[in-house]
Amino acid sequence: MIKGGRLTIPTDLDMIKETLALKEELDADAIRDCDGTIMPDELLESNGKIYATYYTTRKDNEWAEANPEEVQQEYLITDRYTARNTTLEIKLMHGFHTQQLKVNEIDDPKEWWEVIDRTTGEIVPTDKWNYVSETGCVVIETIKYHEYTVSFLAFLIWDPVHMYNFITNDWKDAPHQCTFDVRQPKTQAHVKEKLRQFCIDNPHIDVIRFTTFFHQFTLTFDDQKREKYVEWFGYSASVSPYILRQFEKWAGYKFRPEFIVDQGYHNSIFRIPSKEFRDFIEFQQIEVSKLAKELVDIVHSYGKEAMMFLGDHWIGTEPFGKHFENIGLDAVVGSVGNGVTMRMISDIKGVKYTEGRFLPYFFPDVFNENGDPIKEANENWLQARRAMLRSPLDRIGYGGYLKLAVEWPGFIDTIKNVISEFRQIHEYTNQTKSYTAPFKVAILNSWGSIRRWMNNQVHHAIWYREIYSYVGVIECLSGMPIDVEFISFDDVRNGIDSDIKVIINAGTQGTSWTGGDNWIDEEIVTKIREFVDLGGGFIGVGEPTSYQHQGRFFQLSDVMGVDKEVGFTLSHDKYNTLNAKHFILEDIEEPVDFGEGMASIYAQGDNYQVLAMDQKYCQLVTNQYGKGRSVYFAGLPYSPQNCRLLLRAIYFAASEENNMKKYFVTNMNTEIAAFPSVNKVVIINNSNNDVKTDLYIEGKVHGTYDLKAMEMKWIEL
Amino acid sequence: MIKGGRLTIPTDLDMIKETLALKEELDADAIRDCDGTIMPDELLESNGKIYATYYTTRKDNEWAEANPEEVQQEYLITDRYTARNTTLEIKLMHGFHTQQLKVNEIDDPKEWWEVIDRTTGEIVPTDKWNYVSETGCVVIETIKYHEYTVSFLAFLIWDPVHMYNFITNDWKDAPHQCTFDVRQPKTQAHVKEKLRQFCIDNPHIDVIRFTTFFHQFTLTFDDQKREKYVEWFGYSASVSPYILRQFEKWAGYKFRPEFIVDQGYHNSIFRIPSKEFRDFIEFQQIEVSKLAKELVDIVHSYGKEAMMFLGDHWIGTEPFGKHFENIGLDAVVGSVGNGVTMRMISDIKGVKYTEGRFLPYFFPDVFNENGDPIKEANENWLQARRAMLRSPLDRIGYGGYLKLAVEWPGFIDTIKNVISEFRQIHEYTNQTKSYTAPFKVAILNSWGSIRRWMNNQVHHAIWYREIYSYVGVIECLSGMPIDVEFISFDDVRNGIDSDIKVIINAGTQGTSWTGGDNWIDEEIVTKIREFVDLGGGFIGVGEPTSYQHQGRFFQLSDVMGVDKEVGFTLSHDKYNTLNAKHFILEDIEEPVDFGEGMASIYAQGDNYQVLAMDQKYCQLVTNQYGKGRSVYFAGLPYSPQNCRLLLRAIYFAASEENNMKKYFVTNMNTEIAAFPSVNKVVIINNSNNDVKTDLYIEGKVHGTYDLKAMEMKWIEL
Repeated sequence: MIKGGRLTIPTDLDMIKETLALKEELDADAIRDCDGTIMPDELLESNGKIYATYYTTRKDNEWAEANPEEVQQEYLITDRYTARNTTLEIKLMHGFHTQQLKVNEIDDPKEWWEVIDRTTGEIVPTDKWNYVSETGCVVIETIKYHEYTVSFLAFLIWDPVHMYNFITNDWKDAPHQCTFDVRQPKTQAHVKEKLRQFCIDNPHIDVIRFTTFFHQFTLTFDDQKREKYVEWFGYSASVSPYILRQFEKWAGYKFRPEFIVDQGYHNSIFRIPSKEFRDFIEFQQIEVSKLAKELVDIVHSYGKEAMMFLGDHWIGTEPFGKHFENIGLDAVVGSVGNGVTMRMISDIKGVKYTEGRFLPYFFPDVFNENGDPIKEANENWLQARRAMLRSPLDRIGYGGYLKLAVEWPGFIDTIKNVISEFRQIHEYTNQTKSYTAPFKVAILNSWGSIRRWMNNQVHHAIWYREIYSYVGVIECLSGMPIDVEFISFDDVRNGIDSDIKVIINAGTQGTSWTGGDNWIDEEIVTKIREFVDLGGGFIGVGEPTSYQHQGRFFQLSDVMGVDKEVGFTLSHDKYNTLNAKHFILEDIEEPVDFGEGMASIYAQGDNYQVLAMDQKYCQLVTNQYGKGRSVYFAGLPYSPQNCRLLLRAIYFAASEENNMKKYFVTNMNTEIAAFPSVNKVVIINNSNNDVKTDLYIEGKVHGTYDLKAMEMKWIEL
Repeated sequence: MIKGGRLTIPTDLDMIKETLALKEELDADAIRDCDGTIMPDELLESNGKIYATYYTTRKDNEWAEANPEEVQQEYLITDRYTARNTTLEIKLMHGFHTQQLKVNEIDDPKEWWEVIDRTTGEIVPTDKWNYVSETGCVVIETIKYHEYTVSFLAFLIWDPVHMYNFITNDWKDAPHQCTFDVRQPKTQAHVKEKLRQFCIDNPHIDVIRFTTFFHQFTLTFDDQKREKYVEWFGYSASVSPYILRQFEKWAGYKFRPEFIVDQGYHNSIFRIPSKEFRDFIEFQQIEVSKLAKELVDIVHSYGKEAMMFLGDHWIGTEPFGKHFENIGLDAVVGSVGNGVTMRMISDIKGVKYTEGRFLPYFFPDVFNENGDPIKEANENWLQARRAMLRSPLDRIGYGGYLKLAVEWPGFIDTIKNVISEFRQIHEYTNQTKSYTAPFKVAILNSWGSIRRWMNNQVHHAIWYREIYSYVGVIECLSGMPIDVEFISFDDVRNGIDSDIKVIINAGTQGTSWTGGDNWIDEEIVTKIREFVDLGGGFIGVGEPTSYQHQGRFFQLSDVMGVDKEVGFTLSHDKYNTLNAKHFILEDIEEPVDFGEGMASIYAQGDNYQVLAMDQKYCQLVTNQYGKGRSVYFAGLPYSPQNCRLLLRAIYFAASEENNMKKYFVTNMNTEIAAFPSVNKVVIINNSNNDVKTDLYIEGKVHGTYDLKAMEMKWIEL
């Protein structure tokens, strides 16, 4: 008999009986409210925990209106305008929504704004421009046919998430929730007092679920109320002169708007972060964690738990940063879109437990005649389950309108199965760690560990044509029996950890994920060459080590045995020929899917083997480099087959082929997790078909097993 | 009755009767020998001209062997080698063929060679390396895990073209023809004397066809006798200490091997040429044209004509350079692969006549059971004919083994039709110029006019996946009623000519064709912005104006209304929607073929219209910019439909839509050429189907015409 609990369900005013019934049926031990639903008083006394969503920065327009100078701010940059004459007038709010944002006219524009000549990159001196409040325009003395931008501060007069929910749900009469900046002294005192009062007023609430702390990720709307840019990792809305003056003091140099607006790219996570932006993130973490701790302490002082939602106002918390643990949270909860987003939660340290909100949310966008919530629930679980076996969440839960879920035929049975398998993992493994390879794999990029499980993502598990071929790498890894580190170029400079046996660099040129000009730093290339030469492994995906320099586009073309044709070697004959007989391809049943792939890759040097080609170019190449090895992939979208391909590539690159079958299943649609401390292995079928697989233990066939579609089979050793 | 002549046919020892019969049947007025065939003495007295191929730099091994220091040389660069220790031994000839090339041990390595640390780009001081003649190795004091190359001089002991023919035709007993350098004094005197003697010995020869002058384009073989790199435009084999010392004196600075080996790219025409390489080309033109003139003068002094073959040793002649006319040639002959390669010959100034060798050559690689020489001849003519109407060759001809052609059923009839249509053009147009638009179109790239009709080509009309989407632009233009200039960035700096109304920039990033960092030169961008703003047109294809800088990848994104998603704006929402109703698309019948296209292009700004999309990205976009306009194409391979598309795009960009139908045919498979001076127009059907088209004259419908497949119809006005 599997123990119950570890489960949170949503409720609403009109679902009291149903909530209680489902709570019993699913053996849930926590109930929550959501944005848009209300916790019925009748449930407060039920056994199990009660969660309350809590907002620190909004839902108090009275306060915001009384303290306009403490409304939150965002750095904006105008569109680019070309001067057709020697003066140019730029309307700041053109293309933004005046219901969301309002030019900050309180703080001195000449101190906090910047006009930049984008043709030269130079700052236009402040005596050459003026802000005209009446027209909302900046008037600039210009050089003819140069392009200009204005970077300026604006107040966030409508909370971006509230605005999003308002628009998405077509709310009509709800007042726009204004923001306020908890970092500023008056508001800080007010918010703390409100929190104390909330704790006093709500004795039955067990868990305060912060949604979230102080700074919303960047979410800016255009003049038609459409999303203009959404950077889930963005710090653009975490600024104010109050904060920036502190930053200047801390950093020891003058702040520039350009650190935030970043040429208009708003420090997209794909940008190689500047030193100044990294400083700013560090500073914000220090301050945010300090202040968040004060709120958490208040919650604790009333005997309640503090839980953080990984989203909305999560900016500055950085769960994989070095200041997060100081907050003293009891728990983190977040949405699980796939294996990667699950590990973004389950890998967090410094909390007592982690909780994942599974898909689908019980919202009308899926629970309708065109939707298939059962399929979504199953797919979500298939991708999450394999990650769960490597690094389990402590709890799971659902959100949305309970009514929709209970009325959908078969849906409750579907999630019952999910919940049961989830509980099995905890029950059978007894919190022991699953077996992983006797070496670590490192993902190398410009961010390193602070962006654990975030590579090549735009935001939260959304498919983009430009990224799926690279994000597949971490999605595959999220459920593989491999310990993964995320390392930065500085980590390489400081010396590659000796337990790392394989380094992966994946993505497209010029992005933070491949690393740009880090690859012409001789310290980086020599350290990695030495690492591989002495027996390490290197795996490149897409445009690894890319930076055009001294005759090569891939700076580690010698290590990888490949380079990219960028036009300069079209006159060079290439004699690449296919030789697909290789350890890496042994379990592979179908043509390899390289996703968008990377065109024009050719093998070179004396030690390569081409395993897959597209016309005359290469897609999968191995290379011997001294005692070490390299594997190049043109792309690696997530699929069960590509998980197998990557597993084999890793063992090959590490020269550890002989150890791969310590715990191993032959069928590429299956995976195995071993829990040696409890003498158990579990085989999962990641496909929707029934499959048969051999099981290897310690390199020897242990048996053959049939698994039904999606089945999870526990085997006692 | 159309006049005959204007035609050259090949012959051979065993084809005397057949040559004479065919000469009469086709009304040919010249006979030629080829590499591998011999002119029978019996034909020397026949009427019409006799051509003799003539080689200045080979076919005289006795001389070469007696003067080893005057054998031609080539700058080579070794592969890159990574130092795994503090010394490194590089075998110079590794990967080259020792039958083709031999290390130059005569001239001082320390003066003429260069060892480069490719990790840093720095030159390794000469006291840190040594050449060991016994092993053929350079031994270098190295920094661990840096990469090194050696650039060195080698003698060309087997002429590359002779080697190519030898290998291709599987010759067995022919001695390898060594090269000699006509630029050097001893050899120069010898070669001149030989030429005089040849003229004396061959009174019946009318035309000396130089194949060619002094320097072979770069054609280097690997150690398996396979082509290693072939740069049809390459100067690597035009060097020697003798020449380079002259260059240093002329240029006023020290020569470096790097000017030639160019990081291993050998100055591929896709590379943005360095100042030093452009200087070198200029110097070589001056010297080559001077010396070539001396040979031509000798030929003239014997009452013969001098003809140059545009190929083989054409390096340094640069038919579109400013020194070419000084040579005083009577004629240029070259191979016609398509419209572009035809215009590379027919547009040459400073000669009395131009001649095109049509395809197919009468060689067994086409005249065999798997080949279709009739189809090849027709396709070749279809592409050449439209170019011929704009800038006609004076003569055409064929090459190869005559036997193969006369024995192939129907082949002679096929070329009879080609010859007849070619003669019609001369007869009916009476050497008058065909009508062109009342404005010029300029192709802008790093080379400008010296590389007229050579953009985005690897060599001579060969299809590459990487280029066909861009080379299509000039192939379309080669047969369009448009005067085309090829301009460089310096030409823009010096002021755009007032008769230019549309500027085209086409190709991929970082290449000479788009221009690389020229696009962050404020002089360039401001001049072109002004040009368009005041009413000019701009057409971008692929990655025009590309250089990542200050928030944009396309530096003229404001002019074009598009930029490329390189990963930094994935978080920016794009709301591009299709609106395909446009002047440009009016005659278009089929989905537009953008070739490889360019992925991830999005429209931006306030004045664009998207005419074609691929998923959420754009492929064809127009933009209004002040009084001017822009058109962006994701790619433009050659096809009849794309010719029409480009024609319309040009008239649209030039804001000259109302003038397009001065002479116009509606069917996109047809084109028109008008010859106002002789009151004729000709309609050509570029397709293999019968078609019907309306004809417009001066903007009004003049009639409707049926054309058979491939037909050329002359109409008297």
